[in-house]
Amino acid sequence: MTMEAERTLGDEEVTRLGELAAQLRVDAIRCSTMAGSGHPTSSLSAADLMAVLIARHLRYDWVNPPTRANDHLIFSKGHASPLLYAILRAVGAISEQELMETYRQLGSRLQGHPTPALPWVDVATGSLGQGLPVGVGIALAGRYLDHLPFHVWALCGDSEMAEGSIWEALDKAGHYGLRNLTAIVDVNRLGQRGPTELEWDLDTYRRRVEAFGCRPIVVDGHDLVAIDEAFGQAREATGPTVVLARTVKGKGVPEVENKPGWHGKPLKPDVAEQAVRALGGVRQIRVTGPRPEPVPAAGKPSAPQPPELPEYEKGALVATRNAYGDALRALGSRPDVVALDGEVSDSTRADKFGEAYPDRFFEMFISEQQLVAAAVGLQVRGYRPFAATFAAFLSRAYDFIRMAAISRADIALSGSHAGVEIGADGPSQMGLEDLAALRAVQGSTVLYPSDAVSCAALVAQMVDRKGIAYLRTTRGKYPVLYDNGDDFPIGGSKLLRAGKDDDVALIGAGVTVHNCLAAADELAREGITARVIDLYSVKPLDRQRLLDAVRDTGGRLVVVEDHYPEGGLGSAVLESLADLAEPVRVNHLAVRGLPTSGTSTQLMDQAGIGVHAIVTAARALC
Amino acid sequence: MTMEAERTLGDEEVTRLGELAAQLRVDAIRCSTMAGSGHPTSSLSAADLMAVLIARHLRYDWVNPPTRANDHLIFSKGHASPLLYAILRAVGAISEQELMETYRQLGSRLQGHPTPALPWVDVATGSLGQGLPVGVGIALAGRYLDHLPFHVWALCGDSEMAEGSIWEALDKAGHYGLRNLTAIVDVNRLGQRGPTELEWDLDTYRRRVEAFGCRPIVVDGHDLVAIDEAFGQAREATGPTVVLARTVKGKGVPEVENKPGWHGKPLKPDVAEQAVRALGGVRQIRVTGPRPEPVPAAGKPSAPQPPELPEYEKGALVATRNAYGDALRALGSRPDVVALDGEVSDSTRADKFGEAYPDRFFEMFISEQQLVAAAVGLQVRGYRPFAATFAAFLSRAYDFIRMAAISRADIALSGSHAGVEIGADGPSQMGLEDLAALRAVQGSTVLYPSDAVSCAALVAQMVDRKGIAYLRTTRGKYPVLYDNGDDFPIGGSKLLRAGKDDDVALIGAGVTVHNCLAAADELAREGITARVIDLYSVKPLDRQRLLDAVRDTGGRLVVVEDHYPEGGLGSAVLESLADLAEPVRVNHLAVRGLPTSGTSTQLMDQAGIGVHAIVTAARALC
Repeated sequence: MTMEAERTLGDEEVTRLGELAAQLRVDAIRCSTMAGSGHPTSSLSAADLMAVLIARHLRYDWVNPPTRANDHLIFSKGHASPLLYAILRAVGAISEQELMETYRQLGSRLQGHPTPALPWVDVATGSLGQGLPVGVGIALAGRYLDHLPFHVWALCGDSEMAEGSIWEALDKAGHYGLRNLTAIVDVNRLGQRGPTELEWDLDTYRRRVEAFGCRPIVVDGHDLVAIDEAFGQAREATGPTVVLARTVKGKGVPEVENKPGWHGKPLKPDVAEQAVRALGGVRQIRVTGPRPEPVPAAGKPSAPQPPELPEYEKGALVATRNAYGDALRALGSRPDVVALDGEVSDSTRADKFGEAYPDRFFEMFISEQQLVAAAVGLQVRGYRPFAATFAAFLSRAYDFIRMAAISRADIALSGSHAGVEIGADGPSQMGLEDLAALRAVQGSTVLYPSDAVSCAALVAQMVDRKGIAYLRTTRGKYPVLYDNGDDFPIGGSKLLRAGKDDDVALIGAGVTVHNCLAAADELAREGITARVIDLYSVKPLDRQRLLDAVRDTGGRLVVVEDHYPEGGLGSAVLESLADLAEPVRVNHLAVRGLPTSGTSTQLMDQAGIGVHAIVTAARALC
Repeated sequence: MTMEAERTLGDEEVTRLGELAAQLRVDAIRCSTMAGSGHPTSSLSAADLMAVLIARHLRYDWVNPPTRANDHLIFSKGHASPLLYAILRAVGAISEQELMETYRQLGSRLQGHPTPALPWVDVATGSLGQGLPVGVGIALAGRYLDHLPFHVWALCGDSEMAEGSIWEALDKAGHYGLRNLTAIVDVNRLGQRGPTELEWDLDTYRRRVEAFGCRPIVVDGHDLVAIDEAFGQAREATGPTVVLARTVKGKGVPEVENKPGWHGKPLKPDVAEQAVRALGGVRQIRVTGPRPEPVPAAGKPSAPQPPELPEYEKGALVATRNAYGDALRALGSRPDVVALDGEVSDSTRADKFGEAYPDRFFEMFISEQQLVAAAVGLQVRGYRPFAATFAAFLSRAYDFIRMAAISRADIALSGSHAGVEIGADGPSQMGLEDLAALRAVQGSTVLYPSDAVSCAALVAQMVDRKGIAYLRTTRGKYPVLYDNGDDFPIGGSKLLRAGKDDDVALIGAGVTVHNCLAAADELAREGITARVIDLYSVKPLDRQRLLDAVRDTGGRLVVVEDHYPEGGLGSAVLESLADLAEPVRVNHLAVRGLPTSGTSTQLMDQAGIGVHAIVTAARALC
């Protein structure tokens, strides 16, 4: 079956589209019943929409999913995975056998919710309200960087329209004039536990979408001709579009149509069998939709030159957030590096990149969820995004970071203004749980440099790092500790003071490294020799360095961090040494109370992570 | 100065309001210049709005902030704290000396951003887009629970209108018909690093607000008469209102008026002095605004009866999420207990409460940020909210939970569907970083029961717990392990198997307790005696129990958790034993790879947290 969007939709085509939709329904029912779990009713409501899309509008080379000009199809309502996988069978991407035998089984790439284990899936979905925001990032790449005619189609559920992130996405789509983006909202009126907030109030959806700068197109989501016209209009529109499709949940199976209590429930085998029969039985339709426009092959990227990293004078006072900006600007010599910020680039110092490379800098305003989602979308298109905001405010996007890890996205995040060190602004602005949160992200890298030289060197490595790479930077200015050109491998550490006979090891990262150095000086005056370790790589951690310290000091460690006590640097050290046979005593200094306003020094002292506290802790161990 | 909203605003009153606004401006300038930091320009834009509000519309007894019928004033744009504190001086709540000498200083309650260290401040703000959502919770209490005529006024910045959470809030305000809620948006056109997305496009704001079910009232934010009319209309409106005020950032100080580059910067002393002079100098106006309507005193609450907790048969298969619902329903006998859910109450089993107490159950649909914010607002009014969604999706509200801790809010959160145990739905639905994230919240409590009896007992204690109390529940059904009526103190643990000569201790929580028990049985057949500890209280942790285990087993511990390896149960155990002098060897089993779909048992086995892995780990230690 081949259809072209250019032709008018005749009766025959309508019949064939109806057959295709029936096959999608049948397959969605069959695979979920076979698996004994899944969301058939949420798939049935969108089957007509997707049949028209893949047969006539989605320009996609299914054999070569990385094709540069391929459209992108994102199931923002990831729970409709039976429908997505039914599509994959219909286009010949997967076999009927794979669909029927492996859906939701251990080891299958046809997981309960879509993940990029499938080459046709850009990002993992299943946490609602994320697919469309990621689509915004892909569309940004298409319009502003790739200059390619691909279109991004995001299938959304109506329940997820209650997520603020959807409105962040539509707002940005409007702001950036993303005519290459279409959200298709499957308004089937029923959420998981009952009616959605707006049910079939399409007019309210329409007014909201319009007010947010997108063009709404309201259709009957089961009228194939109307759907076809809507998608045609969406492709030709001069701005972002939202197809608001009134649909019926469970459409095609009278037993469950428009009935609550059927969310996420497969049909029982006998009901399924009857439904499949009523829908005309199993089909073997193979659809070939439109192909992407031929576009020139991408120029072979020249091997990236090592960036000319900024240099700093040893001892000079430089904030690591400034070094982030400097290094990011230096990385800008690579055309695949892009930067984003949440309207605080003069604080995170991402503005240095923005000024040098305005075409590759995306201002996401105060919408941290969209900030991270756009970064994920940009890396789908092969870019290397660096997204920055205050460390504290990355917590706003934690679910997006979590999902980005499941998407196997490669993104760099920079969180500035970490810890009580920020001073007078008070606890709302202090990142104090970010190390715990970011460490717990699957496959993440967590970096926390103490000076400008190490910061720049780490930023340079983040650009090619796999997974979620997080950099924690400090607000205040501290002395440059290292020589330009020093090595700071991820997973490494630095010994700032060391001898074979050290009495104790002082272990810090970021700002507390400076406190450790001062404490070591003070301890030396008391005759206690303290090793000082800069654990700039919090994850992965330099275990060998810790083992050496345990061996040389008799297991006397002071770990000090500008972070709450749980899950941060101290935990990282303890986890790393958990299985050690010899005794290790760790005196762990962290921010245990709720901080207030004050100066950096006052607050670090008050929290017990200042010089005096480190001296006392070391003394107690010796 | 006393004015009443009932009177028409005459010339004399306008003059006096102008004087009050000038005093607010002068004080905001003075205190931030004195502190050397702060946000005067963001305060100047809203001074006229606030002068009219406090003098004529905010019904508030400043001497008795807990007065039941007091209005609520929330600075959602918390960075305008100089203006808030200038108000507090103008109403006589704080002295000029406190304002001038302590703002942003260590130990002061006048912190960089407002916190409830001040009795007139309901919640901490400073992470944008949170004050209004919390206001929705307060207004829900006013309209549906208190039935009191107070009004909630939230001063918002225009930058924060880009946060999706603002639209979640307005959506819920409209949905619940919160006529007692008014957002006042200070549209001063300039964000931190430059123009806002919409600048002075008041018409777009108007259309958005209207589409989200609220009544927009557009005014010139420096026209005192217009402002007064707008607030009068807001108070009398039949639904939620949004006063969209076009303002000028830095208004009143020509050097900075409407100029970028002045966000978050105090005026230099000489500029400040000149500005104060131009504004007419320091004033000593004391304003008394309208008082709250007299309302009947609250009935003295009867001492809450201990709830009749659900009982379970030992050995019966019960999911802890079901026990959550059962216990919550039992707690419903207390009239201050309220419950909220994010449209998944049939999964979290909050529906059990919702069915029994529909008047105290708030459906927040799929908007987890608003879910948590509403809980925070409800506890402002003295209620004991329980908010539930999937553990994975609480990550969506992490910034709100972080801020709730700074607000010293007492809320209970329930995250269901924890870990790989959920099975076929796949990683997007699995809470696998929640223990790390929630443990890192300041002052939090983290509970993870293994069976229905302990779960119910813990839920009963959460109701009076201070701070953020998090309960992690499991999807599947597991045997009841404990006797009804057993004690499960927060901070405690349970010994399920123990002897003086135990070779090793198996430590689990939640679902892994069951795996530990099975492993102990298997180990016993090999002649290895294993202690089994149920660490149902992950924070605070039962350190003594661990010390006993270390002593009795020679420091051989296996910790097993259905969570990523960083920051969870294993870290909690290690942190607790960090300073121990004797050797402890911990074999830490956790979910190290990215999970997929599968059955519970398959996935636990694959992750290395199943019975076989525990046996192997214990054997390796012995």
